[in-house]
Amino acid sequence: MRQVVPTKSPPLPPKKESDQKKDAAKLIISLSPPSSLKIGVLGCTGSVGQRFVLLLAQHPFLRLHAVGASSRSEGKRYREAVRWKQDRPMGDHVGDMVVRACRAVEFADCDVVFSGLDSDVAGDIGASASRNSSRPTSPSSPMPKTIVKTRSVRSLSRGLLVCNSNCAVIGLVLPLAGLQSAFGPITSVSVVTLQALSGAGYPGVPAADLVDNVVPFIQGEEDKLESEARKILGQLDHERVAILHQLSLRVSATCNRVPVQDGHTACVSLSFQRRPPPDAAACRDALRRYVADVQTLGCPSAPVPPIFVLDEQDRPQPRLDRHLGNGYAVSVGRLRADESGVFDIKFTALSHNTIIGAAGSSILNAEAAVLKGYI
Amino acid sequence: MRQVVPTKSPPLPPKKESDQKKDAAKLIISLSPPSSLKIGVLGCTGSVGQRFVLLLAQHPFLRLHAVGASSRSEGKRYREAVRWKQDRPMGDHVGDMVVRACRAVEFADCDVVFSGLDSDVAGDIGASASRNSSRPTSPSSPMPKTIVKTRSVRSLSRGLLVCNSNCAVIGLVLPLAGLQSAFGPITSVSVVTLQALSGAGYPGVPAADLVDNVVPFIQGEEDKLESEARKILGQLDHERVAILHQLSLRVSATCNRVPVQDGHTACVSLSFQRRPPPDAAACRDALRRYVADVQTLGCPSAPVPPIFVLDEQDRPQPRLDRHLGNGYAVSVGRLRADESGVFDIKFTALSHNTIIGAAGSSILNAEAAVLKGYI
Amino acid sequence: MRQVVPTKSPPLPPKKESDQKKDAAKLIISLSPPSSLKIGVLGCTGSVGQRFVLLLAQHPFLRLHAVGASSRSEGKRYREAVRWKQDRPMGDHVGDMVVRACRAVEFADCDVVFSGLDSDVAGDIGASASRNSSRPTSPSSPMPKTIVKTRSVRSLSRGLLVCNSNCAVIGLVLPLAGLQSAFGPITSVSVVTLQALSGAGYPGVPAADLVDNVVPFIQGEEDKLESEARKILGQLDHERVAILHQLSLRVSATCNRVPVQDGHTACVSLSFQRRPPPDAAACRDALRRYVADVQTLGCPSAPVPPIFVLDEQDRPQPRLDRHLGNGYAVSVGRLRADESGVFDIKFTALSHNTIIGAAGSSILNAEAAVLKGYI
Amino acid sequence: MRQVVPTKSPPLPPKKESDQKKDAAKLIISLSPPSSLKIGVLGCTGSVGQRFVLLLAQHPFLRLHAVGASSRSEGKRYREAVRWKQDRPMGDHVGDMVVRACRAVEFADCDVVFSGLDSDVAGDIGASASRNSSRPTSPSSPMPKTIVKTRSVRSLSRGLLVCNSNCAVIGLVLPLAGLQSAFGPITSVSVVTLQALSGAGYPGVPAADLVDNVVPFIQGEEDKLESEARKILGQLDHERVAILHQLSLRVSATCNRVPVQDGHTACVSLSFQRRPPPDAAACRDALRRYVADVQTLGCPSAPVPPIFVLDEQDRPQPRLDRHLGNGYAVSVGRLRADESGVFDIKFTALSHNTIIGAAGSSILNAEAAVLKGYI
Repeated sequence: MRQVVPTKSPPLPPKKESDQKKDAAKLIISLSPPSSLKIGVLGCTGSVGQRFVLLLAQHPFLRLHAVGASSRSEGKRYREAVRWKQDRPMGDHVGDMVVRACRAVEFADCDVVFSGLDSDVAGDIGASASRNSSRPTSPSSPMPKTIVKTRSVRSLSRGLLVCNSNCAVIGLVLPLAGLQSAFGPITSVSVVTLQALSGAGYPGVPAADLVDNVVPFIQGEEDKLESEARKILGQLDHERVAILHQLSLRVSATCNRVPVQDGHTACVSLSFQRRPPPDAAACRDALRRYVADVQTLGCPSAPVPPIFVLDEQDRPQPRLDRHLGNGYAVSVGRLRADESGVFDIKFTALSHNTIIGAAGSSILNAEAAVLKGYI
Repeated sequence: MRQVVPTKSPPLPPKKESDQKKDAAKLIISLSPPSSLKIGVLGCTGSVGQRFVLLLAQHPFLRLHAVGASSRSEGKRYREAVRWKQDRPMGDHVGDMVVRACRAVEFADCDVVFSGLDSDVAGDIGASASRNSSRPTSPSSPMPKTIVKTRSVRSLSRGLLVCNSNCAVIGLVLPLAGLQSAFGPITSVSVVTLQALSGAGYPGVPAADLVDNVVPFIQGEEDKLESEARKILGQLDHERVAILHQLSLRVSATCNRVPVQDGHTACVSLSFQRRPPPDAAACRDALRRYVADVQTLGCPSAPVPPIFVLDEQDRPQPRLDRHLGNGYAVSVGRLRADESGVFDIKFTALSHNTIIGAAGSSILNAEAAVLKGYI
Repeated sequence: MRQVVPTKSPPLPPKKESDQKKDAAKLIISLSPPSSLKIGVLGCTGSVGQRFVLLLAQHPFLRLHAVGASSRSEGKRYREAVRWKQDRPMGDHVGDMVVRACRAVEFADCDVVFSGLDSDVAGDIGASASRNSSRPTSPSSPMPKTIVKTRSVRSLSRGLLVCNSNCAVIGLVLPLAGLQSAFGPITSVSVVTLQALSGAGYPGVPAADLVDNVVPFIQGEEDKLESEARKILGQLDHERVAILHQLSLRVSATCNRVPVQDGHTACVSLSFQRRPPPDAAACRDALRRYVADVQTLGCPSAPVPPIFVLDEQDRPQPRLDRHLGNGYAVSVGRLRADESGVFDIKFTALSHNTIIGAAGSSILNAEAAVLKGYI
Repeated sequence: MRQVVPTKSPPLPPKKESDQKKDAAKLIISLSPPSSLKIGVLGCTGSVGQRFVLLLAQHPFLRLHAVGASSRSEGKRYREAVRWKQDRPMGDHVGDMVVRACRAVEFADCDVVFSGLDSDVAGDIGASASRNSSRPTSPSSPMPKTIVKTRSVRSLSRGLLVCNSNCAVIGLVLPLAGLQSAFGPITSVSVVTLQALSGAGYPGVPAADLVDNVVPFIQGEEDKLESEARKILGQLDHERVAILHQLSLRVSATCNRVPVQDGHTACVSLSFQRRPPPDAAACRDALRRYVADVQTLGCPSAPVPPIFVLDEQDRPQPRLDRHLGNGYAVSVGRLRADESGVFDIKFTALSHNTIIGAAGSSILNAEAAVLKGYI
């Protein structure tokens, strides 16, 4: 299993030699990106699925080829199946597509399949993919070459498996990775999020709960944020430092839902292992200088810079800053010393939850996989 | 200088003996509350001032007698001077009152003067009050007996001085006081707030900044929250523990503005000095058992309980819970162990910022002062 | 079938003599209201049902005795069955009640049953009630004495049937009734509403549809508003004018959903039959002088006045004015001549959709029925 | 004085022959648009000014050359002077521009000057322009060639004067023009608007007024909407029909403010002179077939189609549809017969108030003026 995340240090586990050779071969083969890859999108009617449709409409070489959804939508034209909630039109091309069932065999003509699914239906194609992966692909069981999922990872018979994390975690992890790459391990993090509606899908949160109100709870979100942040950061450090007690990284999360359409805000406080810790100016500089692997690779959707460091005292704000880097960047503001001494520094980070937090990350991963020759 | 806050342990500094005698005398005198005290409200047109008007309209013995505002409003009837933004009518009584200038002499016929002012105009009457306080009150310089201010404390020639804190701090301090009274010192606190609009007054925050948005910054608020929490908690512990290194209490605050009319939400993480720390169930119990001094004293506006501990996993919510205890209570929910180990426990607290966070606190203080015989 | 609506002229159809005698008898019997009537509420978990619970908690003689809901809730304690979304606590009394099934037999111990149901479950008890009504009530088929429904009317074996209208119509009809009673028939009305969330129940409208957005459509609402307004106004005029071509009253409605918790706003334009039409000042006066039957009867929940005429140029506003008359009143503002000549006058009306628009109307009807001796 | 509006029928008054010759000459000269025109923007820090900056950043031949604002901003870099509230970055080019005073002489190096000003500062440059226009331009009094204002029209010494209308009127007038061009005169219109925040500028409406609320009043807006709609429609018909009693067109407007960032919604009811009136299907067809002059001219920003007719029953919605045609189009939905008989048809129209309602209209006008050779 391989995982690619859009960060400076790809969190690849140590490879077996045979794998590495295979990769090298692939890299040689695919030095020039393919003129066009056929893309399938599972869960195409959901909020992440819709974002995939929008992002792929403008992509240089990933071309939307097939869309899948639940049996309720199967067989309908996409424009009839979807309740389109994006602020830009879907385009006639996809509107006329007939929605397929979310079964692996239905996407055998795709080079890469993205999933906007959280759960059940995703499980189906994942399961069939997993079963297939334990034996050689036979002509009678055609499979898409790659599934890039937003939440979980499964093995396929061929191609690469790429995973994404929880939609809130990237806004936390990217700045942390930037700081760790400059100043070494972070030991403790406290993060309180103010998360957008689109993270809950549609219909999601009732308006009755978010007019003149906030909801101080998101089911399962805090656990995911804590565990996935540690996992990704552990992987990130793994390559860099021979022996790292990353288990010593502690992440404490509290998640709130606020009446914002898109863009998760994270109020982050953290401490470094290094004594004395870097000051705020040094941290801002480190984040500004941070270069992501996807950028170095030349991924066409990679934002430059990957992290926008904002100096205005009241930024980042979801409505104003979620589109920075076309939604592929994370913006960081209010980076300041924690004068109280509870932590070393504090900052506020913002990330577009359905772009860099979900669909955009999958696209970056696919771009990286292509450029590295894995596809 | 005496300070009364609506908590179990009144943060009174050790008194000189002569003072204590005087107090005792007063207490004897005022065992029965006066049938009616004449109340003045400075800054009557602002959001806190309007809240004073609403709360006093229903009060058993504090009777609104005079209202003061800036020179722009002076001489107008209250209903013409104010842009009334409360969801209940002001009442004809106050609507017909003529607004006075915010000069001390204008309120000489009041027994107690409350201030809903933040700054300049408040300064005027405060200054004149302070100057007067250095010498005996003469007939030619009539003064109101007491000024109860929402932000600062000043000495007057007679009567008691009572202070309130920042409108966000009470929602933090009351649960902390409850926990400290049961489990001893808290050593570190990290608090992230989601604060309501009315805390910024009117016109306050433009709607353009809070539709589909949150603002991750409130000018000066974090400093106030950090310093006032430490100050109040220090005082609270002072009586209880002979020697207390309360300076070792560290409070780290981050403040956000969210599109909520009333009710500040605080996401709180904290650690105790005691090892092992109390578990979540013990903490919930302690908060449920907490009794505030104002309650023991029999203050008519004192909420019972002062802290509502909610078990629902998605509470407290501003719209649903800010009216608990008629807005005089603090509600606490999601009290849980911090499994990450960064802190001991985490919880979410909610307080009505213009009631218990401002006008209501002043009223409780005044009630306490009356019942203790200070007025 | 009898209908009572909270207006000056009860829209009773001409009665048969025998009925009138019976009524007179009842009136004599019930000159003094009962010390307490046992009330059942169907659909107790919905937004109208929750409003019934709140309003009955403070009622002088209607006492909440039983609550009913769908089979999903049956047998649970109310506090477990309901997702309480009101901004005041439900109270322990009702919280401990066990939810009954919505079958007539379950409410046989109630004097009056209110329904907060729109549809299916309501149909059950309605149907069984209707069936029973065709024959004398037998001991083996115990029935509640009265069902007061919010939407439809059905006959019962004994007692009175009282109907309410669509939750938006009362805010339109009450001012129209006031104007017609003073100036004679209105011939054409154009109304555009901005309706609150609670009218759609819970979960109702997704927040994704109402953050930075309005929805210019409410399924079925415009038809209801047009037909029910004509029906009620026709009835109102019926008593007053011997022969009235009220079918000539034309009502054109457009309904929008806006991000407001409670309170439907209606922008109304209308023309009178009378030439020249009354001017704006005369219309304001007529509305101010309007007296509702429920007020004359002495219904304890009847607001005085039933219509608040506001002079401020930017009122009524939902947040500020929906509680006028404890939510039982309609507020009217911006009453002005239509200088364009398209209509005679224009105004904006506001009504609390779950109080006077639903539960409150039922309560007024029940109070009236009691005071008139129908119950 | 000439006026250009982005509609099928340019509302030009009958021209004197000499003028017509001059126009013809200009048209010949400018058959090919200039490679680049230097544009100035007055009121560059306001919400319309910011929209000009965004729209010009992507324009093929209108190049932002100078920005002007009040004396408070004069001499500062744009990025320091402005409180940027757009959801896309301003760009470095304009961020570094030094803000000029709003005096005519300061913009003498511009080919066209747009104004985002409502009032005072705009008056200055207008006044100086007007004074200059009474005499030949001298080298000592350099003037920008053209001022394209959003609200008012003034004569300049050379070039063309182009006017825009109230930001809400275009969403009403464009569909009306489309219907009139197909079916002849409209006799009466009733329009109720739900208008966006950005129409009030910044800071504009306080959030306290629009959280859980709508405001049923916008100062001066109804008069403007009524009078400007009649004026523009009168002009539109003037060319088409020899004798038109357009004064008989009556427009009745009611304006509300709702918590929407951008996009004015208009609920429109209207009647035609023609009996029988066209049915809804015919009206939808007519709007779909409508072609605007700016489109025929080949204006690069002209949307195709100018009117999007939507068939979904719950559209248009501000968040979803305001960007249709890049914000230069008007979308119309819910076009239906008025079954009540009060009017002939009803529909809901949506327009982006700072694009087609303000800055975009100016840009279209300038494009048209260039393509017609007036500049």
